[in-house]
Amino acid sequence: MELAAGIDFGGTFAKIGLVERSGRIRARTQVAMDARESFEGIVRPVAETLRGLIAKEAPAERLVTIGIGTPGFIDKTEGVLIGGCENIPALQKRSVQQYLGRTFDVPAFAENDATSAAAGELAFGAGRSLSSFVLITVGTAIGGGLVLDGKVYRGWRGFAGEIGHLCVNRDGLWCNCGSRGCLEQYASGTAILRVYTEKLRKRGENPDSSLTTRGVVDRASAGDTCARDTLEEAGMWIAQAFGSLLNVLDLEACIVGGGVSEAGEVLLEPIRRHLPDHCWPQIGNGVSVRIAELRNDAGILGAAAQAFERLTR
Amino acid sequence: MELAAGIDFGGTFAKIGLVERSGRIRARTQVAMDARESFEGIVRPVAETLRGLIAKEAPAERLVTIGIGTPGFIDKTEGVLIGGCENIPALQKRSVQQYLGRTFDVPAFAENDATSAAAGELAFGAGRSLSSFVLITVGTAIGGGLVLDGKVYRGWRGFAGEIGHLCVNRDGLWCNCGSRGCLEQYASGTAILRVYTEKLRKRGENPDSSLTTRGVVDRASAGDTCARDTLEEAGMWIAQAFGSLLNVLDLEACIVGGGVSEAGEVLLEPIRRHLPDHCWPQIGNGVSVRIAELRNDAGILGAAAQAFERLTR
Repeated sequence: MELAAGIDFGGTFAKIGLVERSGRIRARTQVAMDARESFEGIVRPVAETLRGLIAKEAPAERLVTIGIGTPGFIDKTEGVLIGGCENIPALQKRSVQQYLGRTFDVPAFAENDATSAAAGELAFGAGRSLSSFVLITVGTAIGGGLVLDGKVYRGWRGFAGEIGHLCVNRDGLWCNCGSRGCLEQYASGTAILRVYTEKLRKRGENPDSSLTTRGVVDRASAGDTCARDTLEEAGMWIAQAFGSLLNVLDLEACIVGGGVSEAGEVLLEPIRRHLPDHCWPQIGNGVSVRIAELRNDAGILGAAAQAFERLTR
Repeated sequence: MELAAGIDFGGTFAKIGLVERSGRIRARTQVAMDARESFEGIVRPVAETLRGLIAKEAPAERLVTIGIGTPGFIDKTEGVLIGGCENIPALQKRSVQQYLGRTFDVPAFAENDATSAAAGELAFGAGRSLSSFVLITVGTAIGGGLVLDGKVYRGWRGFAGEIGHLCVNRDGLWCNCGSRGCLEQYASGTAILRVYTEKLRKRGENPDSSLTTRGVVDRASAGDTCARDTLEEAGMWIAQAFGSLLNVLDLEACIVGGGVSEAGEVLLEPIRRHLPDHCWPQIGNGVSVRIAELRNDAGILGAAAQAFERLTR
């Protein structure tokens, strides 16, 4: 059977999986990452672990491609990480794609992790039946991926999908991209934790310093009014961004993934409710707003999906 | 030789041209439109005029397709005008595409006029060498069209490209689309005339009530400070919209068309200057900001270009 390796680079570890064309994950593992390591120090253990995983779990199968997801801007031809991946500085200006492709002598494809996630949802998840959608991944930051006319959209150089940096508030907060008022400043996990903490203080409570975004989401799900108000606000900002995107791209669906999407309807309901305020009625009509399906497997499955897709083109 | 008819419906007349695949306009004419007429009352004279133009100017040639551009939302399969064309109410819910296709027994294709214009720039104009761009047409309103991965992008149902309704100012002016803060409210010809008039009054002058947007553009070109300030502001808003679009779509170029683009560098220079404030440096790097080339022929050539393109797919 033909397998793809799907590799998802994060700041603390790399997830590695062997994936069938059907989307079944045959085997998986992970490698701890030391972000202070050199490029070789990061990618060689990943290559060795992948080799070991194949030898142990799928010795008779054929590895046909390797898909790699990382944060940042990845040049779509050479796979060079051009920037925007400050968490793993050793990857900057280098190509994991070329390293792993040569090491395993198969076509390898590096991709922004949120665009990978969109490829995964298209092949195996919430986007299976859709011809066009935007996926936003709401985690510490906000990533985004686009599927247009049935295909993953990468843009001129491979940098498309920076939905977190759509301007939603022109005189608003400064963003680490250098612009002001980006969606990420208002609806990322970081923003949700900040807003919730501010709200608690203003309501006379003293927030627990160990509180996490996950904790805010859990409280909202449990009915905490202040946490629900916080997700309502985040949902309003996301609806505004979705509305502008729909006006520009006439999409079939808007999909929300990433850790914060675990909030489910507590986040989706305000997005759906506010969406008509932000797009033409004709364009908003019939658009589906839904949660991504691949959850914790999004990294591995997305990386594998985009590699399978690019292999067969 | 194979010819396409390119027909551009406006509020006061329809422009009709016979266009070669090279983009050469073999012959052209126009028909006065009475927007109060019935559907038949509007489209039959257009069909008769087209038949007469062929008989007179190209009797030996073969009409292979008819392209139609109109304002509004046009369903991309049946060519039905779903809405957004209030200037010509008789076209609403009807398909000029079907009427003319049957009348001439050739494939006909209706398209939003700004998306048509983008198809025209791609085939014959400022987008010839580009793989991806956004075109905004700045006239009374702001229209938009997208070319992605070398092809005209139409969206799920054919409604894509409503760049004029990208939100640039969330608490801003109400728009006729029902949302707030749309680009169209700040940078259309209508907005430019309004802002210029307001600025003049505040500067103690009494604006001539016969002043038009064209007049403001001419004054700016002639060095009038207040008119230049007005175009500077419009350029800033357009730059903000372009910046968000670049972050989302990673485009090779941003093109400005429509009557206001006659201002040339007086409008482009502020757009280029403000653009880096509104997108990632990696994404803005190398992006070309330019004026559309087809000008008064944009309607006919765009309609013909999108028909040729869809004919051969």
